[in-house]
Amino acid sequence: MPHTRHTERHFTAGETVRDIVIGMSDGLTVPFALAAGLTGAIDHVGIIVTAGLAEIAAGSIAMGLGGYLAAKSAAEHYAKEREREKREVVEIPDEEKREVAQVFHSYGLSHEESAPIVEALSKQPKKWVDFMMRFELGLEKPDPKRAFVSAFTIAASYVAGGLIPLAPYIVAVYVKQLSVATALLLSVAVTLIALFVFGFIKGRYTGTRPMRSALQTALIGSIAAGAAFLIARLIS
Amino acid sequence: MPHTRHTERHFTAGETVRDIVIGMSDGLTVPFALAAGLTGAIDHVGIIVTAGLAEIAAGSIAMGLGGYLAAKSAAEHYAKEREREKREVVEIPDEEKREVAQVFHSYGLSHEESAPIVEALSKQPKKWVDFMMRFELGLEKPDPKRAFVSAFTIAASYVAGGLIPLAPYIVAVYVKQLSVATALLLSVAVTLIALFVFGFIKGRYTGTRPMRSALQTALIGSIAAGAAFLIARLIS
Repeated sequence: MPHTRHTERHFTAGETVRDIVIGMSDGLTVPFALAAGLTGAIDHVGIIVTAGLAEIAAGSIAMGLGGYLAAKSAAEHYAKEREREKREVVEIPDEEKREVAQVFHSYGLSHEESAPIVEALSKQPKKWVDFMMRFELGLEKPDPKRAFVSAFTIAASYVAGGLIPLAPYIVAVYVKQLSVATALLLSVAVTLIALFVFGFIKGRYTGTRPMRSALQTALIGSIAAGAAFLIARLIS
Repeated sequence: MPHTRHTERHFTAGETVRDIVIGMSDGLTVPFALAAGLTGAIDHVGIIVTAGLAEIAAGSIAMGLGGYLAAKSAAEHYAKEREREKREVVEIPDEEKREVAQVFHSYGLSHEESAPIVEALSKQPKKWVDFMMRFELGLEKPDPKRAFVSAFTIAASYVAGGLIPLAPYIVAVYVKQLSVATALLLSVAVTLIALFVFGFIKGRYTGTRPMRSALQTALIGSIAAGAAFLIARLIS
Protein backbone atom coordinates (compact mmCIF):
# COMPACT_ATOMS: atom_id res chain seq x y z
CA MET A 1 0.00 0.00 0.00
CA PRO A 2 1.90 3.03 -1.23
CA HIS A 3 -0.44 5.44 0.60
CA THR A 4 0.48 4.06 4.03
CA ARG A 5 4.19 4.14 3.27
CA HIS A 6 3.86 7.68 2.07
CA THR A 7 2.10 9.02 5.18
CA GLU A 8 4.52 7.17 7.45
CA ARG A 9 7.32 9.40 6.26
CA HIS A 10 5.50 12.30 7.91
CA PHE A 11 5.38 10.48 11.27
CA THR A 12 6.74 12.55 14.11
CA ALA A 13 6.01 11.63 17.74
CA GLY A 14 3.66 9.13 19.31
CA GLU A 15 1.54 10.31 22.19
CA THR A 16 3.44 8.41 24.88
CA VAL A 17 6.75 9.73 23.61
CA ARG A 18 5.27 13.23 23.64
CA ASP A 19 4.13 12.82 27.27
CA ILE A 20 7.57 11.55 28.33
CA VAL A 21 9.18 14.52 26.57
CA ILE A 22 6.83 17.00 28.30
CA GLY A 23 7.40 15.56 31.77
CA MET A 24 11.11 14.95 31.48
CA SER A 25 11.97 18.32 29.89
CA ASP A 26 10.70 20.16 32.97
CA GLY A 27 11.72 17.42 35.43
CA LEU A 28 15.34 17.55 34.33
CA THR A 29 15.40 21.35 34.25
CA VAL A 30 13.52 22.86 37.20
CA PRO A 31 14.67 20.63 40.13
CA PHE A 32 18.19 20.87 38.71
CA ALA A 33 18.04 24.66 38.61
CA LEU A 34 16.48 24.86 42.06
CA ALA A 35 19.12 22.62 43.66
CA ALA A 36 21.93 24.48 41.90
CA GLY A 37 20.40 27.82 42.92
CA LEU A 38 20.08 26.82 46.56
CA THR A 39 23.70 25.61 46.59
CA GLY A 40 24.65 29.20 45.86
CA ALA A 41 22.89 30.34 49.04
CA ILE A 42 22.75 27.48 51.54
CA ASP A 43 25.54 25.24 52.78
CA HIS A 44 23.19 22.57 54.12
CA VAL A 45 22.67 19.58 51.85
CA GLY A 46 19.61 18.28 53.79
CA ILE A 47 17.65 21.47 53.02
CA ILE A 48 18.58 21.29 49.33
CA VAL A 49 17.34 17.69 49.14
CA THR A 50 14.14 18.60 51.01
CA ALA A 51 13.47 21.53 48.68
CA GLY A 52 14.29 19.42 45.64
CA LEU A 53 11.96 16.56 46.61
CA ALA A 54 9.20 19.03 47.57
CA GLU A 55 9.60 20.64 44.13
CA ILE A 56 9.46 17.26 42.38
CA ALA A 57 6.25 16.42 44.27
CA ALA A 58 4.67 19.80 43.51
CA GLY A 59 5.81 19.93 39.89
CA SER A 60 4.79 16.37 38.99
CA ILE A 61 1.34 16.79 40.57
CA ALA A 62 0.78 20.19 38.98
CA MET A 63 1.77 18.89 35.55
CA GLY A 64 0.08 15.48 35.78
CA LEU A 65 -3.18 16.54 37.43
CA GLY A 66 -3.29 19.77 35.43
CA GLY A 67 -2.81 17.79 32.21
CA TYR A 68 -5.48 15.29 33.25
CA LEU A 69 -8.10 17.97 33.90
CA ALA A 70 -7.16 19.87 30.72
CA ALA A 71 -7.64 16.67 28.69
CA LYS A 72 -11.01 16.05 30.34
CA SER A 73 -12.08 19.62 29.57
CA ALA A 74 -10.96 19.27 25.95
CA ALA A 75 -12.99 16.05 25.61
CA GLU A 76 -16.07 17.78 27.05
CA HIS A 77 -15.56 20.82 24.83
CA TYR A 78 -15.37 18.53 21.80
CA ALA A 79 -18.53 16.63 22.84
CA LYS A 80 -20.41 19.91 23.38
CA GLU A 81 -19.39 21.38 20.01
CA ARG A 82 -20.25 18.07 18.33
CA GLU A 83 -23.74 18.13 19.81
CA ARG A 84 -24.15 21.68 18.50
CA GLU A 85 -23.05 20.70 14.99
CA LYS A 86 -25.31 17.65 15.10
CA ARG A 87 -28.28 19.89 15.93
CA GLU A 88 -27.32 22.43 13.32
CA VAL A 89 -27.09 20.02 10.37
CA VAL A 90 -30.69 19.08 11.20
CA GLU A 91 -32.08 22.50 12.12
CA ILE A 92 -30.22 24.84 9.77
CA PRO A 93 -28.90 22.56 6.99
CA ASP A 94 -28.68 25.37 4.42
CA GLU A 95 -26.51 27.47 6.69
CA GLU A 96 -24.26 24.46 7.34
CA LYS A 97 -24.04 23.72 3.62
CA ARG A 98 -22.92 27.31 3.08
CA GLU A 99 -20.21 26.71 5.70
CA VAL A 100 -18.92 23.60 3.90
CA ALA A 101 -18.80 25.56 0.64
CA GLN A 102 -17.00 28.34 2.54
CA VAL A 103 -14.28 25.90 3.67
CA PHE A 104 -13.67 24.89 0.05
CA HIS A 105 -13.92 28.50 -1.10
CA SER A 106 -10.95 29.33 1.12
CA TYR A 107 -8.99 26.78 -0.96
CA GLY A 108 -9.86 28.59 -4.15
CA LEU A 109 -12.80 26.45 -5.28
CA SER A 110 -15.86 28.04 -6.82
CA HIS A 111 -19.37 27.35 -5.63
CA GLU A 112 -19.94 25.18 -8.72
CA GLU A 113 -16.83 23.11 -8.09
CA SER A 114 -17.69 22.38 -4.48
CA ALA A 115 -21.45 21.85 -5.00
CA PRO A 116 -21.26 18.05 -5.66
CA ILE A 117 -19.25 17.40 -2.51
CA VAL A 118 -21.52 19.61 -0.41
CA GLU A 119 -24.53 17.64 -1.65
CA ALA A 120 -22.82 14.28 -1.10
CA LEU A 121 -21.83 15.21 2.45
CA SER A 122 -25.30 16.49 3.28
CA LYS A 123 -26.69 13.01 2.58
CA GLN A 124 -24.60 11.46 5.36
CA PRO A 125 -25.25 13.50 8.52
CA LYS A 126 -22.72 11.64 10.71
CA LYS A 127 -19.85 12.11 8.26
CA TRP A 128 -21.02 15.68 7.69
CA VAL A 129 -20.70 16.44 11.40
CA ASP A 130 -17.23 14.78 11.43
CA PHE A 131 -16.26 17.01 8.52
CA MET A 132 -17.48 20.19 10.24
CA MET A 133 -15.65 19.34 13.47
CA ARG A 134 -12.38 18.80 11.69
CA PHE A 135 -12.46 21.30 8.86
CA GLU A 136 -14.64 24.15 10.06
CA LEU A 137 -13.70 24.11 13.75
CA GLY A 138 -10.26 22.48 13.46
CA LEU A 139 -11.01 20.16 16.40
CA GLU A 140 -9.51 16.64 16.59
CA LYS A 141 -11.48 14.01 18.47
CA PRO A 142 -9.71 13.57 21.82
CA ASP A 143 -9.44 10.12 23.38
CA PRO A 144 -10.91 10.46 26.90
CA LYS A 145 -9.33 7.15 27.99
CA ARG A 146 -5.89 8.56 27.27
CA ALA A 147 -6.23 11.37 29.85
CA PHE A 148 -5.31 9.20 32.83
CA VAL A 149 -2.44 7.33 31.15
CA SER A 150 -1.15 10.63 29.77
CA ALA A 151 -1.25 12.33 33.20
CA PHE A 152 0.54 9.42 34.84
CA THR A 153 3.22 9.28 32.13
CA ILE A 154 3.91 13.01 32.42
CA ALA A 155 4.10 12.91 36.24
CA ALA A 156 6.32 9.78 36.31
CA SER A 157 8.67 11.29 33.71
CA TYR A 158 8.91 14.47 35.79
CA VAL A 159 9.85 12.44 38.89
CA ALA A 160 12.36 10.31 36.95
CA GLY A 161 13.92 13.43 35.39
CA GLY A 162 13.99 15.33 38.70
CA LEU A 163 15.76 12.57 40.63
CA ILE A 164 18.78 12.70 38.30
CA PRO A 165 20.06 16.16 39.37
CA LEU A 166 19.12 15.45 43.01
CA ALA A 167 20.97 12.11 43.18
CA PRO A 168 24.41 13.55 44.05
CA TYR A 169 22.86 15.69 46.84
CA ILE A 170 21.01 12.64 48.20
CA VAL A 171 24.29 10.70 48.23
CA ALA A 172 25.94 13.65 50.01
CA VAL A 173 23.41 13.39 52.84
CA TYR A 174 24.77 9.94 53.68
CA VAL A 175 28.39 10.22 52.55
CA LYS A 176 29.81 12.95 54.75
CA GLN A 177 33.04 13.17 52.74
CA LEU A 178 31.01 14.56 49.81
CA SER A 179 30.74 18.35 50.24
CA VAL A 180 27.81 20.43 48.98
CA ALA A 181 30.09 22.07 46.41
CA THR A 182 31.17 18.66 45.08
CA ALA A 183 27.53 17.52 44.98
CA LEU A 184 26.74 20.62 42.86
CA LEU A 185 29.57 19.81 40.42
CA LEU A 186 28.43 16.18 40.14
CA SER A 187 24.81 17.32 39.71
CA VAL A 188 25.80 19.73 36.93
CA ALA A 189 27.81 16.98 35.22
CA VAL A 190 25.18 14.20 35.34
CA THR A 191 22.33 16.60 34.49
CA LEU A 192 24.12 18.14 31.50
CA ILE A 193 24.82 14.63 30.19
CA ALA A 194 21.19 13.62 30.82
CA LEU A 195 19.84 16.81 29.16
CA PHE A 196 22.13 16.23 26.20
CA VAL A 197 21.13 12.57 25.74
CA PHE A 198 17.46 13.37 26.34
CA GLY A 199 17.56 16.30 23.89
CA PHE A 200 19.23 14.08 21.28
CA ILE A 201 16.55 11.36 21.59
CA LYS A 202 13.80 14.01 21.68
CA GLY A 203 15.16 15.51 18.44
CA ARG A 204 14.99 12.10 16.71
CA TYR A 205 11.35 11.69 17.68
CA THR A 206 10.17 15.24 17.01
CA GLY A 207 11.90 15.81 13.69
CA THR A 208 14.40 18.45 14.90
CA ARG A 209 18.04 17.73 14.11
CA PRO A 210 19.17 15.56 17.08
CA MET A 211 22.46 17.38 17.70
CA ARG A 212 20.77 20.76 17.68
CA SER A 213 17.98 19.53 19.96
CA ALA A 214 20.63 18.10 22.35
CA LEU A 215 22.49 21.43 22.53
CA GLN A 216 19.27 23.47 22.92
CA THR A 217 17.98 21.26 25.73
CA ALA A 218 21.29 21.44 27.60
CA LEU A 219 21.31 25.23 27.06
CA ILE A 220 17.84 25.78 28.55
CA GLY A 221 18.82 23.76 31.63
CA SER A 222 22.07 25.70 32.00
CA ILE A 223 20.42 29.12 31.66
CA ALA A 224 17.65 28.22 34.12
CA ALA A 225 20.17 26.84 36.63
CA GLY A 226 22.47 29.83 36.17
CA ALA A 227 19.65 32.31 36.72
CA ALA A 228 18.42 30.45 39.82
CA PHE A 229 21.97 30.33 41.16
CA LEU A 230 22.49 34.09 40.63
CA ILE A 231 19.16 35.06 42.18
CA ALA A 232 19.68 32.82 45.22
CA ARG A 233 23.18 34.19 45.72
CA LEU A 234 22.07 37.82 45.32
CA ILE A 235 19.32 37.67 47.94
CA SER A 236 20.98 35.37 50.50
CA MET B 1 -22.63 38.43 7.57
CA PRO B 2 -24.31 35.49 9.21
CA HIS B 3 -21.31 33.21 8.65
CA THR B 4 -19.04 35.35 10.83
CA ARG B 5 -21.59 35.59 13.62
CA HIS B 6 -22.05 31.85 13.51
CA THR B 7 -18.37 30.95 13.80
CA GLU B 8 -17.87 33.46 16.58
CA ARG B 9 -20.08 31.40 18.83
CA HIS B 10 -17.40 28.71 18.71
CA PHE B 11 -14.69 31.12 19.86
CA THR B 12 -12.80 29.85 22.86
CA ALA B 13 -9.43 31.31 23.84
CA GLY B 14 -7.14 33.81 22.14
CA GLU B 15 -3.46 32.98 21.98
CA THR B 16 -2.39 35.58 24.55
CA VAL B 17 -5.05 34.41 27.01
CA ARG B 18 -3.84 30.84 26.46
CA ASP B 19 -0.23 31.85 27.18
CA ILE B 20 -1.25 33.68 30.37
CA VAL B 21 -3.24 30.61 31.47
CA ILE B 22 -0.28 28.28 30.80
CA GLY B 23 2.20 30.43 32.72
CA MET B 24 -0.04 31.41 35.60
CA SER B 25 -1.44 27.89 36.22
CA ASP B 26 2.02 26.60 37.03
CA GLY B 27 3.27 29.86 38.54
CA LEU B 28 0.48 29.93 41.11
CA THR B 29 0.82 26.22 41.88
CA VAL B 30 4.47 25.14 42.04
CA PRO B 31 6.10 28.01 44.00
CA PHE B 32 3.08 27.91 46.35
CA ALA B 33 3.50 24.17 46.92
CA LEU B 34 7.26 24.49 47.33
CA ALA B 35 7.00 27.30 49.92
CA ALA B 36 4.26 25.44 51.81
CA GLY B 37 6.30 22.24 51.65
CA LEU B 38 9.45 23.89 52.98
CA THR B 39 7.48 25.50 55.83
CA GLY B 40 6.77 21.92 56.97
CA ALA B 41 10.49 21.27 57.28
CA ILE B 42 12.37 24.54 57.82
CA ASP B 43 11.75 27.28 60.34
CA HIS B 44 13.78 29.89 58.46
CA VAL B 45 11.78 32.32 56.32
CA GLY B 46 14.85 33.59 54.44
CA ILE B 47 15.58 30.12 53.03
CA ILE B 48 11.96 29.67 51.96
CA VAL B 49 12.02 33.00 50.10
CA THR B 50 15.37 32.11 48.49
CA ALA B 51 14.07 28.71 47.37
CA GLY B 52 10.82 30.25 46.14
CA LEU B 53 12.53 32.94 44.08
CA ALA B 54 15.05 30.43 42.70
CA GLU B 55 12.12 28.24 41.67
CA ILE B 56 10.33 31.15 40.02
CA ALA B 57 13.49 31.99 38.05
CA ALA B 58 14.04 28.36 37.03
CA GLY B 59 10.41 27.64 36.22
CA SER B 60 9.77 30.80 34.22
CA ILE B 61 12.94 30.33 32.16
CA ALA B 62 12.27 26.63 31.57
CA MET B 63 8.70 27.34 30.47
CA GLY B 64 9.41 30.50 28.47
CA LEU B 65 12.60 29.43 26.73
CA GLY B 66 11.32 25.87 26.31
CA GLY B 67 8.15 27.21 24.71
CA TYR B 68 10.12 29.56 22.47
CA LEU B 69 12.34 26.80 21.11
CA ALA B 70 9.39 24.42 20.72
CA ALA B 71 7.54 27.08 18.69
CA LYS B 72 10.62 27.62 16.51
CA SER B 73 10.92 23.87 15.94
CA ALA B 74 7.23 23.64 15.04
CA ALA B 75 7.63 26.47 12.51
CA GLU B 76 10.64 24.74 10.96
CA HIS B 77 8.85 21.40 10.89
CA TYR B 78 5.92 23.06 9.11
CA ALA B 79 8.21 24.73 6.57
CA LYS B 80 10.00 21.44 5.88
CA GLU B 81 6.78 19.45 5.39
CA ARG B 82 5.44 22.23 3.16
CA GLU B 83 8.51 22.07 0.95
CA ARG B 84 8.02 18.31 0.68
CA GLU B 85 4.35 18.69 -0.31
CA LYS B 86 5.27 21.42 -2.78
CA ARG B 87 7.75 19.07 -4.45
CA GLU B 88 5.30 16.17 -4.43
CA VAL B 89 2.41 17.96 -6.15
CA VAL B 90 4.87 18.63 -8.99
CA GLU B 91 6.76 15.33 -9.04
CA ILE B 92 4.06 12.78 -8.16
CA PRO B 93 0.76 14.61 -8.84
CA ASP B 94 -1.22 11.38 -9.36
CA GLU B 95 -0.17 10.04 -5.96
CA GLU B 96 -1.11 13.37 -4.35
CA LYS B 97 -4.48 13.38 -6.13
CA ARG B 98 -5.11 9.90 -4.71
CA GLU B 99 -4.34 11.32 -1.26
CA VAL B 100 -6.88 14.12 -1.66
CA ALA B 101 -9.49 11.58 -2.76
CA GLN B 102 -8.50 9.45 0.25
CA VAL B 103 -9.21 12.37 2.63
CA PHE B 104 -12.71 12.70 1.18
CA HIS B 105 -13.15 8.93 1.10
CA SER B 106 -12.72 8.89 4.89
CA TYR B 107 -15.78 11.19 5.01
CA GLY B 108 -17.81 8.64 3.07
CA LEU B 109 -17.52 10.23 -0.39
CA SER B 110 -17.08 8.02 -3.42
CA HIS B 111 -14.34 8.53 -5.98
CA GLU B 112 -16.92 9.96 -8.40
CA GLU B 113 -18.21 12.46 -5.85
CA SER B 114 -14.76 13.80 -4.96
CA ALA B 115 -13.34 13.77 -8.50
CA PRO B 116 -14.42 17.35 -9.43
CA ILE B 117 -12.87 18.87 -6.32
CA VAL B 118 -9.66 16.86 -6.77
CA GLU B 119 -9.40 18.18 -10.32
CA ALA B 120 -10.18 21.75 -9.26
CA LEU B 121 -7.57 21.67 -6.50
CA SER B 122 -4.92 20.20 -8.79
CA LYS B 123 -5.22 23.29 -11.01
CA GLN B 124 -4.11 25.59 -8.17
CA PRO B 125 -0.84 24.17 -6.79
CA LYS B 126 -0.51 26.70 -3.93
CA LYS B 127 -4.03 26.07 -2.60
CA TRP B 128 -3.49 22.36 -3.17
CA VAL B 129 -0.41 22.39 -0.93
CA ASP B 130 -2.37 24.40 1.68
CA PHE B 131 -5.07 21.77 1.54
CA MET B 132 -2.64 18.86 1.99
CA MET B 133 -0.93 20.57 4.95
CA ARG B 134 -4.18 21.10 6.78
CA PHE B 135 -6.26 18.10 5.80
CA GLU B 136 -3.79 15.31 5.09
CA LEU B 137 -1.15 16.19 7.68
CA GLY B 138 -3.34 18.10 10.15
CA LEU B 139 -0.74 20.87 10.49
CA GLU B 140 -1.75 24.48 11.16
CA LYS B 141 0.54 27.22 9.88
CA PRO B 142 2.44 28.50 12.94
CA ASP B 143 3.22 32.19 13.26
CA PRO B 144 7.01 32.39 13.79
CA LYS B 145 6.75 35.99 15.01
CA ARG B 146 4.50 34.88 17.86
CA ALA B 147 7.19 32.60 19.37
CA PHE B 148 8.98 35.42 21.20
CA VAL B 149 5.85 37.22 22.44
CA SER B 150 4.39 33.89 23.51
CA ALA B 151 7.53 32.89 25.45
CA PHE B 152 7.67 36.26 27.19
CA THR B 153 3.95 36.18 28.10
CA ILE B 154 4.27 32.66 29.57
CA ALA B 155 7.39 33.55 31.59
CA ALA B 156 5.95 36.85 32.88
CA SER B 157 2.70 35.14 33.90
CA TYR B 158 4.70 32.48 35.75
CA VAL B 159 6.60 35.19 37.65
CA ALA B 160 3.42 37.15 38.44
CA GLY B 161 1.64 34.00 39.62
CA GLY B 162 4.61 32.80 41.66
CA LEU B 163 5.04 36.08 43.55
CA ILE B 164 1.51 35.83 45.02
CA PRO B 165 2.15 32.83 47.31
CA LEU B 166 5.63 34.13 48.15
CA ALA B 167 4.46 37.63 49.13
CA PRO B 168 3.58 36.78 52.78
CA TYR B 169 6.98 35.11 53.26
CA ILE B 170 8.75 38.12 51.74
CA VAL B 171 6.86 40.40 54.16
CA ALA B 172 7.85 38.06 57.02
CA VAL B 173 11.54 38.56 56.20
CA TYR B 174 11.15 42.26 57.06
CA VAL B 175 8.36 42.17 59.67
CA LYS B 176 9.83 40.12 62.47
CA GLN B 177 6.47 39.84 64.27
CA LEU B 178 5.18 37.70 61.41
CA SER B 179 6.11 34.05 62.16
CA VAL B 180 6.79 31.47 59.44
CA ALA B 181 3.59 29.62 60.46
CA THR B 182 1.52 32.79 60.04
CA ALA B 183 3.18 33.46 56.67
CA LEU B 184 2.17 29.95 55.60
CA LEU B 185 -1.45 30.54 56.61
CA LEU B 186 -1.53 33.90 54.80
CA SER B 187 0.12 32.30 51.74
CA VAL B 188 -2.47 29.50 51.68
CA ALA B 189 -5.29 32.07 52.02
CA VAL B 190 -4.14 34.50 49.29
CA THR B 191 -3.11 31.69 46.94
CA LEU B 192 -6.39 29.79 47.29
CA ILE B 193 -8.28 33.01 46.54
CA ALA B 194 -5.97 33.70 43.57
CA LEU B 195 -6.32 30.12 42.24
CA PHE B 196 -10.07 30.35 42.62
CA VAL B 197 -10.37 33.71 40.81
CA PHE B 198 -7.87 32.63 38.15
CA GLY B 199 -9.68 29.30 37.63
CA PHE B 200 -13.00 31.13 37.32
CA ILE B 201 -11.66 33.52 34.65
CA LYS B 202 -9.84 30.65 32.89
CA GLY B 203 -13.13 28.71 32.75
CA ARG B 204 -14.89 31.65 31.11
CA TYR B 205 -12.24 31.84 28.39
CA THR B 206 -11.77 28.12 27.77
CA GLY B 207 -15.43 27.08 27.74
CA THR B 208 -15.40 25.05 30.97
CA ARG B 209 -18.06 26.02 33.52
CA PRO B 210 -16.35 28.85 35.50
CA MET B 211 -17.35 27.56 38.95
CA ARG B 212 -16.10 24.08 38.19
CA SER B 213 -12.86 25.43 36.68
CA ALA B 214 -12.36 27.57 39.83
CA LEU B 215 -12.78 24.59 42.15
CA GLN B 216 -10.56 22.32 40.02
CA THR B 217 -7.77 24.90 39.86
CA ALA B 218 -7.86 25.46 43.62
CA LEU B 219 -7.91 21.67 44.15
CA ILE B 220 -4.79 21.05 42.04
CA GLY B 221 -2.92 23.75 43.98
CA SER B 222 -4.05 22.28 47.30
CA ILE B 223 -3.09 18.70 46.42
CA ALA B 224 0.31 19.77 45.10
CA ALA B 225 0.98 21.89 48.20
CA GLY B 226 -0.27 19.14 50.53
CA ALA B 227 1.96 16.53 48.88
CA ALA B 228 4.99 18.82 48.99
CA PHE B 229 4.28 19.60 52.67
CA LEU B 230 4.01 15.89 53.58
CA ILE B 231 7.16 14.89 51.70
CA ALA B 232 9.20 17.72 53.19
CA ARG B 233 7.98 16.89 56.70
CA LEU B 234 8.63 13.15 56.26
CA ILE B 235 12.25 13.53 55.19
CA SER B 236 13.31 16.43 57.39
